[in-house]
Amino acid sequence: MNITEKILARASGAKEVQPGEIIEVEVDLAMSHDGTSPPTINTFNKIANQVWDPDKIVMVYDHNLPANTMGSAEFQRVTRDFARTQGIKNLYTHGEGICHQVLPEEGFIKPGMVVVGADSHTCTYGAFGAFATGMGATDVAVVYATGKTWFMVPGAFQIEVDGILREHVTAKDLILHIIGSIGSYGATYKTLEFCGSTVQDMDVAGRMTMCNMAVESGAKNGIMEPNQSVLKYLKERNVENFQIFTSDPDSVYEKSLHFPVDDLEPQVACPHNVDNVHPVSHVSGESIDQAFIGSCTNGRLEDLRMAAQVLENEKVHPDVRLIVSPASRRIYQAAIAEGIIETFLDAGAIIINPGCGPCLGAHMGVLTAGEVCISTTNRNFVGRMGDPLSEVYLANPAVVAYSAIHGEIRNPGE
Amino acid sequence: MNITEKILARASGAKEVQPGEIIEVEVDLAMSHDGTSPPTINTFNKIANQVWDPDKIVMVYDHNLPANTMGSAEFQRVTRDFARTQGIKNLYTHGEGICHQVLPEEGFIKPGMVVVGADSHTCTYGAFGAFATGMGATDVAVVYATGKTWFMVPGAFQIEVDGILREHVTAKDLILHIIGSIGSYGATYKTLEFCGSTVQDMDVAGRMTMCNMAVESGAKNGIMEPNQSVLKYLKERNVENFQIFTSDPDSVYEKSLHFPVDDLEPQVACPHNVDNVHPVSHVSGESIDQAFIGSCTNGRLEDLRMAAQVLENEKVHPDVRLIVSPASRRIYQAAIAEGIIETFLDAGAIIINPGCGPCLGAHMGVLTAGEVCISTTNRNFVGRMGDPLSEVYLANPAVVAYSAIHGEIRNPGE
Repeated sequence: MNITEKILARASGAKEVQPGEIIEVEVDLAMSHDGTSPPTINTFNKIANQVWDPDKIVMVYDHNLPANTMGSAEFQRVTRDFARTQGIKNLYTHGEGICHQVLPEEGFIKPGMVVVGADSHTCTYGAFGAFATGMGATDVAVVYATGKTWFMVPGAFQIEVDGILREHVTAKDLILHIIGSIGSYGATYKTLEFCGSTVQDMDVAGRMTMCNMAVESGAKNGIMEPNQSVLKYLKERNVENFQIFTSDPDSVYEKSLHFPVDDLEPQVACPHNVDNVHPVSHVSGESIDQAFIGSCTNGRLEDLRMAAQVLENEKVHPDVRLIVSPASRRIYQAAIAEGIIETFLDAGAIIINPGCGPCLGAHMGVLTAGEVCISTTNRNFVGRMGDPLSEVYLANPAVVAYSAIHGEIRNPGE
Repeated sequence: MNITEKILARASGAKEVQPGEIIEVEVDLAMSHDGTSPPTINTFNKIANQVWDPDKIVMVYDHNLPANTMGSAEFQRVTRDFARTQGIKNLYTHGEGICHQVLPEEGFIKPGMVVVGADSHTCTYGAFGAFATGMGATDVAVVYATGKTWFMVPGAFQIEVDGILREHVTAKDLILHIIGSIGSYGATYKTLEFCGSTVQDMDVAGRMTMCNMAVESGAKNGIMEPNQSVLKYLKERNVENFQIFTSDPDSVYEKSLHFPVDDLEPQVACPHNVDNVHPVSHVSGESIDQAFIGSCTNGRLEDLRMAAQVLENEKVHPDVRLIVSPASRRIYQAAIAEGIIETFLDAGAIIINPGCGPCLGAHMGVLTAGEVCISTTNRNFVGRMGDPLSEVYLANPAVVAYSAIHGEIRNPGE
């Protein structure tokens, strides 16, 4: 069996599971955010009175924080009241950060877990060797009520990445390159199992970026065997008592894809699809109005550091607004301590509080018709960041920072 | 004549002006923000082709920045295009801060000027001995077109403040106390001329806070004779070539009010009116959901410093969200350099980018029904920060910070 199958077998109490099989599993951790908690609660209230285990539920406010409308303020009140009534103590409602950053950071994520979340990028936690997937609010409501859910065991794609990345080439470029290759529907309901020397040597931030975007190929989950960086990360957060699963040598994969990446240049996903991926040099010169660095994909300290190095002693182009959002308060604090926030402010950036806002056009950076944004985020479909007539290019933090300086998409390695 | 009469006489080319007289004046500086520029431009386009003097117009984006909706993004685009077409170079559209902070900070404000702005708190610049008043977008459009406007010369109230303020008592408490005394309609269309030893010894931040809120008593403007702090502030920004006006000893005032303030305790304006003012000890114990420190009233470095001193080694109450917005990027940078932002983050605050958002319930801190906020801002009428069933208490930064720690309104001097 592969990692995912082993975790699902463990969680369903079976000795073995097969792709295509429908199984019922015990969930180890469930999550919802300010946008998805109210519909989850609404369904929950129709089927149960008490959550199955308040200590296995985490609620994070990140999508509309601080509240941008009376409606979102009311959503937050409803969720707060529910948590209080149900004895849910794992609440991160006051700007702690984006759920997919906060959960690992606060030590909730362990290798071998089954994690479900009412957010599509829940697959991020695959970076730690957990089975993690996003589900609709109704499905999560059932988990809140019973601690159980069902899955069809996904077939698996093995994605092997080998090589040493060049300067300004990152995990973001790998995952864009991979999605560009397999297509945004190319791995629908599959497990993307990332392996190879590049992944094995990758830091936690990069691993999270890659697993985070697994869903953009349609995958059920993305997953990696925990490496030394993961074990160190867990140790620093006193995370103990977990089981590490690895894929057997005789694991069966529907596809095995190999990506040599020594010569890869930074990649850009062009409007209006995440699989419309091109080397940055092919889109160089495209004029931009906004640049955004942040999100659950690329708002970590490593990302901010890379962008700040590009922006050091430079100024953002006068026709561009550069918006920066650290993915969590802890990252924000570390970025201040390192002088990174100072560099951004000196360059003329707008630092917004940790959260999801601009990524989904919710608030704090919405685009109007005709505007073009280059962004470190994960989606660029029509209207993702605002008006249907706006355009979004996805790239890594160095490309976004360098483009912000020049007022047009440019390759920092040029 | 008093200061205001002298400035208006100068600007209208008259030797003398009388209260009640209608005069036409040359405007020295005009301002609009992201919310009021589009209606200003709309009217302008009906009456003119070219602005009277692009160098005397300043545009600042602060109310919905970064754009919280497609509509506000479009407003910002319209304004940007207008500025480009008209050759307006004084643009602060990328998070530089709140207009009433940015204009003095960037050296636009001089003593003796006539300044109009499409924002009611334009009266802030009275702190520098300028005649400054807010006007509707239509009136500002006429100024953009002609450089001229008309006023009825206001009658004057002399507000004399004497005494040494106790710890945790600030300019905010003075102005709340004064408005509580004269009422929110008590000085309609009057000049509030602040004087007395307390005002004479006051720093620029405090002077701006007092003049900022003059409009909350209905006043046309608030004004103060420039003191040494003002002259130092101007010198640091290389502001030269200005004329200082002072009131003649035989100036006539409709009212002369004297406020001895040695024994004043911190003041709180209770829902739902800015003149519903009580000593903080009388409202102590009132439970709160949100606390906000920022705005053109109280978002300056001195305000943040005072709040940070209260929050040092403390934590925000778990049931309270504390939102902090430095009034400008420069203040933000200085607050990072001083460790103030670190203190806020350590305490659990949410730092949002410089702007007006929460003050007017626009975004980044909107209240839902039943919620209570204590805020350093300037208005607390029904629905000001969100739902009509929410409540806002106005106070100084130390009171807000101390209340945020305790989850209820409390006197930091208790």
